[in-house]
Amino acid sequence: MDSESQLVERTGRAIPSSKGRRGLANLRLGIGDDAAVLVPTGRAEWVLSCDAFLEGVHFLEKVHPPDSVGYKALVRAASDLVAMGATPRLFLLTLALPSRLTGDWLDSFLRGMGRAARLLDMRLAGGDTTRSQSVFINVTVLGEASLGQAVARSGAQPGDIIYVSGKLGGAQLGLELIINRGTRGPGLSRLLRPHLYPSIRTKLGEWLGRHGVPSAMMDISDGLSTDLDRLCRASHAGARLWAARIPRVSIPDLISRQRKRLNLDPLKLALHGGEDYELLFTVSHRKVKRLRHAPGFRELTPIGEITSRRGMILIGEDGRSETLEPAGWDPFRKKS
Amino acid sequence: MDSESQLVERTGRAIPSSKGRRGLANLRLGIGDDAAVLVPTGRAEWVLSCDAFLEGVHFLEKVHPPDSVGYKALVRAASDLVAMGATPRLFLLTLALPSRLTGDWLDSFLRGMGRAARLLDMRLAGGDTTRSQSVFINVTVLGEASLGQAVARSGAQPGDIIYVSGKLGGAQLGLELIINRGTRGPGLSRLLRPHLYPSIRTKLGEWLGRHGVPSAMMDISDGLSTDLDRLCRASHAGARLWAARIPRVSIPDLISRQRKRLNLDPLKLALHGGEDYELLFTVSHRKVKRLRHAPGFRELTPIGEITSRRGMILIGEDGRSETLEPAGWDPFRKKS
Repeated sequence: MDSESQLVERTGRAIPSSKGRRGLANLRLGIGDDAAVLVPTGRAEWVLSCDAFLEGVHFLEKVHPPDSVGYKALVRAASDLVAMGATPRLFLLTLALPSRLTGDWLDSFLRGMGRAARLLDMRLAGGDTTRSQSVFINVTVLGEASLGQAVARSGAQPGDIIYVSGKLGGAQLGLELIINRGTRGPGLSRLLRPHLYPSIRTKLGEWLGRHGVPSAMMDISDGLSTDLDRLCRASHAGARLWAARIPRVSIPDLISRQRKRLNLDPLKLALHGGEDYELLFTVSHRKVKRLRHAPGFRELTPIGEITSRRGMILIGEDGRSETLEPAGWDPFRKKS
Repeated sequence: MDSESQLVERTGRAIPSSKGRRGLANLRLGIGDDAAVLVPTGRAEWVLSCDAFLEGVHFLEKVHPPDSVGYKALVRAASDLVAMGATPRLFLLTLALPSRLTGDWLDSFLRGMGRAARLLDMRLAGGDTTRSQSVFINVTVLGEASLGQAVARSGAQPGDIIYVSGKLGGAQLGLELIINRGTRGPGLSRLLRPHLYPSIRTKLGEWLGRHGVPSAMMDISDGLSTDLDRLCRASHAGARLWAARIPRVSIPDLISRQRKRLNLDPLKLALHGGEDYELLFTVSHRKVKRLRHAPGFRELTPIGEITSRRGMILIGEDGRSETLEPAGWDPFRKKS
């Protein structure tokens, strides 16, 4: 047996991948063939997305535990489905890695990805493996939604209320800490969790899609300022945000001494920090009261409103308005 | 606008990506959102696959023209759908590249990919772009087939005849030439074409699937010896091949002087050379005569038969049998 085939077998053992009926579709053929074969069995729409995760760009081999790399590669891809109001179902894994990492590193990576697959109730349907100089991962995800349920980012209307789920900035705080302090230290593991093992709002996303509540929705992967700008541009609109309302990570005492050195301003982390994978969505006044029935309603915060005037305005805690520029993560803003 | 969004716009302009009804599925949302949304509109099965294409592994930036890289990245991915008997429809592009290649190189890359998309009548439905140290491409492809039409590689039965389409070894010959002689020279461009701009057997694959002729099918991407071994293992069977019957590339006079130096043995090129993207399939005796109606029937060659005994046997032109080991392309057999 060639060694690529052995890798495929190891992957299939570590990650849920059996065939059979599943949700609204039947997986007739899974990993190991040229392609996966799916048979739609109901009236549904299918949501398809892919997400790259690269050593040196999105994670560092020397810093990030391999099980976190595997876990996060799947969760961040699935987040794009949840952000459409869809239910994640299947994924394909493209994995390019140096031969030296095909032992323990790969086992740990697959364990992390298997854990994420079980948490999200997703199944591996195929993929591609090859060698490379550094680790390159691409995850393609397929989800299902009822017909007409998937929510685009382009439907926001002036006057709609802008909501976010959870608190923002926690993943960026974790990144700053792991780079400056490593993975060991008292109280550190809780603070690193949003960066290493992020949760996504599967139930909330499905509920919002099923009940047709949001006029537009996306996930916050590159930072609120950058992602809200994208939502506004897609909707041909602008936004006004109240700084005081933006739910943000709290920085505990144990690291507040380092706060200055690390540039840990909670509002800046919340505005521009990436990888929170919280949901950002807009709701018309008419539909706001329906939100009360949403799973995790208490973790939803209205942070501003959509305006017909383009651009984003941030109203500071002192009442003064300033222009908010997208300053989150943009891979091409940095030099490579 | 952030520069990642600008890249997405440029990609959408260069490659067919409009929305609308298409084949059996409706593309309700295309590139630019978190995910693409597809609405299946008939009784079909969907075939899904992904394929990595990496600088330094699958192509060399200094050797391969960028339009060939773009062209081939899509064609080789679509080949997996054709090998299932499906019709290619949509694709997602993950593109990671150094900032220095986001100018002319990228324009040429996108032109090549756009040309392949038009040839294959495929549409770009989404993707992901990021920076990286070297070029990494992943193409996810989605195709459609009638219900039950998709052909696995696992159905070959002892006694089935093994067929290949076209001649084998041409892509490998092109690779040897481009590495040793570059892209310029008299008569060279015709010889390089199978390596730089491979064709795939879209019509033949669809026909075979629609008429339920093959018991097993796959494409030859890593070399006949390696891919036939995979088909046999998946089918719990073996194979016997006649060397004299294997259709192979002819090596023209202009390079036959170099044949020895380059190790250009036509049979070896045909047995172990990769990237021909010809179809390899098995047909029961009962169904062989139906093949006469296949598009491109004259380019089909029976090269051997499936055996119940595992392993592969090659009967040489001198009548002697030898064991055939898989010796095609395996990314993990080489050191990285």
